[in-house]
Amino acid sequence: MTGAPGPGLLRAIRFADGTLWALDQTLLPFAELELALHGAAEVADAIRRLAIRGAPLIGVAAAYGVALELARNPGVDSLQHACRVLRAARPTAVNLAWALERVRDAALAGDPALLPTTALEEAHAIHAEEEAASAAIARNGADLLAGAGRVMTHCNTGALAAPGRGTALAVIAELAQRGGLQGVIATESRPLLQGARLTVYELSRFGIAHELIVDSAACGLIARGAVDAVIVGCDRVAVNGDVANKVGTYGLALAAREAAIPFVVAGPTSTIDPDCADGSQIEIEQRDPDEVRCAGAQPLTFSGTPCRNPAFDLTPARLVTALVTERGVARPPTIRTISRVRGALLTSRA
Amino acid sequence: MTGAPGPGLLRAIRFADGTLWALDQTLLPFAELELALHGAAEVADAIRRLAIRGAPLIGVAAAYGVALELARNPGVDSLQHACRVLRAARPTAVNLAWALERVRDAALAGDPALLPTTALEEAHAIHAEEEAASAAIARNGADLLAGAGRVMTHCNTGALAAPGRGTALAVIAELAQRGGLQGVIATESRPLLQGARLTVYELSRFGIAHELIVDSAACGLIARGAVDAVIVGCDRVAVNGDVANKVGTYGLALAAREAAIPFVVAGPTSTIDPDCADGSQIEIEQRDPDEVRCAGAQPLTFSGTPCRNPAFDLTPARLVTALVTERGVARPPTIRTISRVRGALLTSRA
Repeated sequence: MTGAPGPGLLRAIRFADGTLWALDQTLLPFAELELALHGAAEVADAIRRLAIRGAPLIGVAAAYGVALELARNPGVDSLQHACRVLRAARPTAVNLAWALERVRDAALAGDPALLPTTALEEAHAIHAEEEAASAAIARNGADLLAGAGRVMTHCNTGALAAPGRGTALAVIAELAQRGGLQGVIATESRPLLQGARLTVYELSRFGIAHELIVDSAACGLIARGAVDAVIVGCDRVAVNGDVANKVGTYGLALAAREAAIPFVVAGPTSTIDPDCADGSQIEIEQRDPDEVRCAGAQPLTFSGTPCRNPAFDLTPARLVTALVTERGVARPPTIRTISRVRGALLTSRA
Repeated sequence: MTGAPGPGLLRAIRFADGTLWALDQTLLPFAELELALHGAAEVADAIRRLAIRGAPLIGVAAAYGVALELARNPGVDSLQHACRVLRAARPTAVNLAWALERVRDAALAGDPALLPTTALEEAHAIHAEEEAASAAIARNGADLLAGAGRVMTHCNTGALAAPGRGTALAVIAELAQRGGLQGVIATESRPLLQGARLTVYELSRFGIAHELIVDSAACGLIARGAVDAVIVGCDRVAVNGDVANKVGTYGLALAAREAAIPFVVAGPTSTIDPDCADGSQIEIEQRDPDEVRCAGAQPLTFSGTPCRNPAFDLTPARLVTALVTERGVARPPTIRTISRVRGALLTSRA
């Protein structure tokens, strides 16, 4: 936290010199270290251990992972292998599968001799599109939430979670830039503390007033009128508007409805899964119990304690006030409105 | 965790040799160490830093604290001073004020020359009554929840939180003893992790199957049908049935209502505050931001991060399926039913 770098300077990933450089998010905010990634397996490992995280960001990183693999080992077999390895890294965010499919389709449709080049060009295209999507989400969300002075958010949804300025946190940054934002309440987001580590890091960089809370304080604060709106990201949105997002999201949605304040979900249309009719079809990733048993290096309980560690939960569409995408706002997000915002996506896939 | 000591052997506090011995709960489950406390200030400090915690337990400990102070320094001034020091230790649990009032009234009503003896006798009486209350709560709660195979609980409400076997955790232990309990889901209960450290410790001693979760996983698991009931303790219950309890309780109540499963609160009638008309009158303790910034010795964010750290939240009576006390079950807990269960308390205070 030396100096005050502008928000635009935070790059969670960048492609340079034939290498994917990724800020190791497991070390933030205490150390800023870039990993140099050279192939699909290295990118998949970084995604699996959350060095690279956030639904839109892992999509883009995975796209680069395919290109890196093809640069080392060109050929259709290598392409398919890279897609398999990267696809298996994490199951819930649909952006991963979506980006891999785009790179594969583009590469296979092009000149077989130019597989590596075509794949890299497509990865760059996805990256640029998601950056533009972030800017549009920020504008659309800030229009929607104009007048909200105190906002609560969960997990990390900023420049560390998505290209550009992020999703929900990009909306918050835009609200701050337009003036009128009084402050942000950020949940710590156990078990891996993306709120305490990453959102606080980003809000500090932006110079946005914030307060950190333990996750379980969120519902009570909403009930006491501490915030005007809740805004979160998403890892997968079903066609009916059901949302899979960071574990803990569902409780915030219940509390927001009870307090009659907006509960807004922000994400690029790449997060909408056209093959998923509703939330019940979304696989919820179960992660290592040691994430629950520890906080960082600190053991919190007996080493053998049985744990459940779902990384996500499901928020039914009926609790979502609006879904903010780069194509517009689906409000309320039901099959009809979701279809509207993902229209362009379907076109680009067709 | 060597051997398998019976549940009856866990004594969070005991009075012996003119000393209050208290298991230092800040060190559990990694070390079992008893503090030797000799006066009101030492007891108040142990309560403030949560070495002794749990609404019913701090009431009993405070009663002994007055007796200890009078043994060193007899006299009415000393009595009043001890009550003031102990009363200021924590603001939310009403048991503290209730127990201090009982000891003071008993001492002042007796022979002035016997102040220390009378105070100690009253402290022993409160201790014995709260132990008996725990046993009755266990029976009443297990009757109410007969058939519930999978139960979720929050924070710690066992022998470390109340004399005897505790409150909500005593109900769970009784359900296990009667057979049919399949397992318990325990929340870790940030920031001080009473679930991960203390509830897991107690359930392990009881040999009751359990799984630990991060707090924010609770609502989603309730929604997915992972448990048949939620049972928690309470730090103060208003006359209209509103409940102040460990931060995070309110979200569990919302999720339980949404899933149409019972949300049960257990506590002795000493936790009901006859002077508190509703939850809005309950002072919510705000604790040190460093509790949020760290987990044990592990820093989780920047050392200067602003935090909010409410130790409790409020659950409105309308979300509470039943209040289980030693006098019976108030169901639903509204002014009329609360009055019924606290009848005996009011008599003893009159």
